[in-house]
Amino acid sequence: MLEEFVISVFAAVGTIAFATSGSFKGIRHNLDILGIFVLGFVTALGGGLIRDALLGHTPVAFIDVMPSIYAAIGCIIAMLSGRISLKILAMLTQPESKAFLVVDAIGLAAFTVLGARMGADAGLNLFGIVLLGSITGVGGGAIRDLLVVEVPLILKADFYATATIIGAVIFAVLYWLDWSLPVIMLITFTLTLVLRLLAIWRHWQLPKTKWD
Amino acid sequence: MLEEFVISVFAAVGTIAFATSGSFKGIRHNLDILGIFVLGFVTALGGGLIRDALLGHTPVAFIDVMPSIYAAIGCIIAMLSGRISLKILAMLTQPESKAFLVVDAIGLAAFTVLGARMGADAGLNLFGIVLLGSITGVGGGAIRDLLVVEVPLILKADFYATATIIGAVIFAVLYWLDWSLPVIMLITFTLTLVLRLLAIWRHWQLPKTKWD
Amino acid sequence: MLEEFVISVFAAVGTIAFATSGSFKGIRHNLDILGIFVLGFVTALGGGLIRDALLGHTPVAFIDVMPSIYAAIGCIIAMLSGRISLKILAMLTQPESKAFLVVDAIGLAAFTVLGARMGADAGLNLFGIVLLGSITGVGGGAIRDLLVVEVPLILKADFYATATIIGAVIFAVLYWLDWSLPVIMLITFTLTLVLRLLAIWRHWQLPKTKWD
Repeated sequence: MLEEFVISVFAAVGTIAFATSGSFKGIRHNLDILGIFVLGFVTALGGGLIRDALLGHTPVAFIDVMPSIYAAIGCIIAMLSGRISLKILAMLTQPESKAFLVVDAIGLAAFTVLGARMGADAGLNLFGIVLLGSITGVGGGAIRDLLVVEVPLILKADFYATATIIGAVIFAVLYWLDWSLPVIMLITFTLTLVLRLLAIWRHWQLPKTKWD
Repeated sequence: MLEEFVISVFAAVGTIAFATSGSFKGIRHNLDILGIFVLGFVTALGGGLIRDALLGHTPVAFIDVMPSIYAAIGCIIAMLSGRISLKILAMLTQPESKAFLVVDAIGLAAFTVLGARMGADAGLNLFGIVLLGSITGVGGGAIRDLLVVEVPLILKADFYATATIIGAVIFAVLYWLDWSLPVIMLITFTLTLVLRLLAIWRHWQLPKTKWD
Repeated sequence: MLEEFVISVFAAVGTIAFATSGSFKGIRHNLDILGIFVLGFVTALGGGLIRDALLGHTPVAFIDVMPSIYAAIGCIIAMLSGRISLKILAMLTQPESKAFLVVDAIGLAAFTVLGARMGADAGLNLFGIVLLGSITGVGGGAIRDLLVVEVPLILKADFYATATIIGAVIFAVLYWLDWSLPVIMLITFTLTLVLRLLAIWRHWQLPKTKWD
């Protein structure tokens, strides 16, 4: 079915992207090979685990082998970029590296969509859909950052949570309007990704502090 | 019913208080407006999410809109205090600010009571009630502190966990004695709050180290 | 029954060991007595809570009093070692203290086995068993390290996750070969522990970075 196919594609893309982002962070923190894999896996699977635990979908997340295969692919991509060229790797793993932020953005968009869709599937109301989409989108990345003792992107980055929340709201509204799910998912994914990329590119910032 | 009403009041008070404490911390860490909201929400809803996940009450936490409304109120209160006076805000958001510690204490007391009551409701034994009350009380604040990469209050603050645990034990004992639930909740809340406030005010400390 | 007995022994040993490791860390970070208990308990019970939440075994973890008794024993052992001799305690709680790493290794091995067995019991496939064993093994220690704002051992320590994963894979393979569970558990525990201890003693490292 088309819907199933769209879901699989998003799951694959999001998992690979987040795994790559986790591995980049592991490389930058000078972890050994397994540490890099662990950080990649945790980042890639963390959002989904939180989502399933919150929904009470247990122990579903463990039975499927595919997510781990995608995660492994993401980790290997990150490590191979070091093989190909140290200079490229050094660029990729810089703290403010655009490449890092872009793979993170892809993961963010894909997981926001998947979380929102699972919430819709579980019969949550519109508010619950937005919340679950947002948490799923940002969960893996937050765990990744916490594990290397950094303040998560979601708190630091201007227009990070904003992109997710807008995406999840659009999803919930279109779902309420009864559009077809594959269409909703494509629109939401594209919009979230474009918003986040624009934010990176144009250095969008939310107003910070009238108070300092 | 009286019991339902008491529960709603505690939920409202605790959620608003924790959201305010989270937002204060976000302001101090110079986050943008959405970061402040995110930290407020996570602090306010985190304890309840942990509690529900541990009890297997899923996906209940998402379906209700009220907690998020309370959380938003708490965040707005924190931000408005900056509008009214920068000097007040500066005081409120200092690391050892009494105002911060007080709203945190209110959240702590309210959530300890709610967690213990939910444990009693789920048929846990007295030990389980104490454990669930304590975890619910301290959970949101612990997540808040971890997200901004600080050692959680529960580990640093003298007489923080102690207050929660004493509160939860009192709850469990009174529950075992079969007192009426609204009465138990009021007593436990008051006692936990007073203990924690006294600890802040009188700088109570547990014995630290015979060994250094 | 033999199997039940073996499980109880591993649960006791793992819980006490992890509680001791958490308390050692609390002492080093100069926490007060309750903070030391909290860190000991979180470390000892954290892996099991994550495991149960992921499996949807709720609220089982709270109803049993034994884990908390074991955790308390572990905390008391750690604190008593300070009573007996400050010099011994100072050695035990050093960051790279062998004693700390050894109790941590015992906890790691015991919880890997328990997690894998629970996964087998829940009917997970071999892959799920490995994943659940690994997560259970490393979960409590990861929470412990995060709470005191350190990068978790699983990311820093060479051959930490490797030992767990090898142990969990051996478990899954022997389980698939239909060996008797007590035998599998003893073999897996011994192997994981020996691997980790060898790694500590011989300073085994995984290859780190061709790239720096």
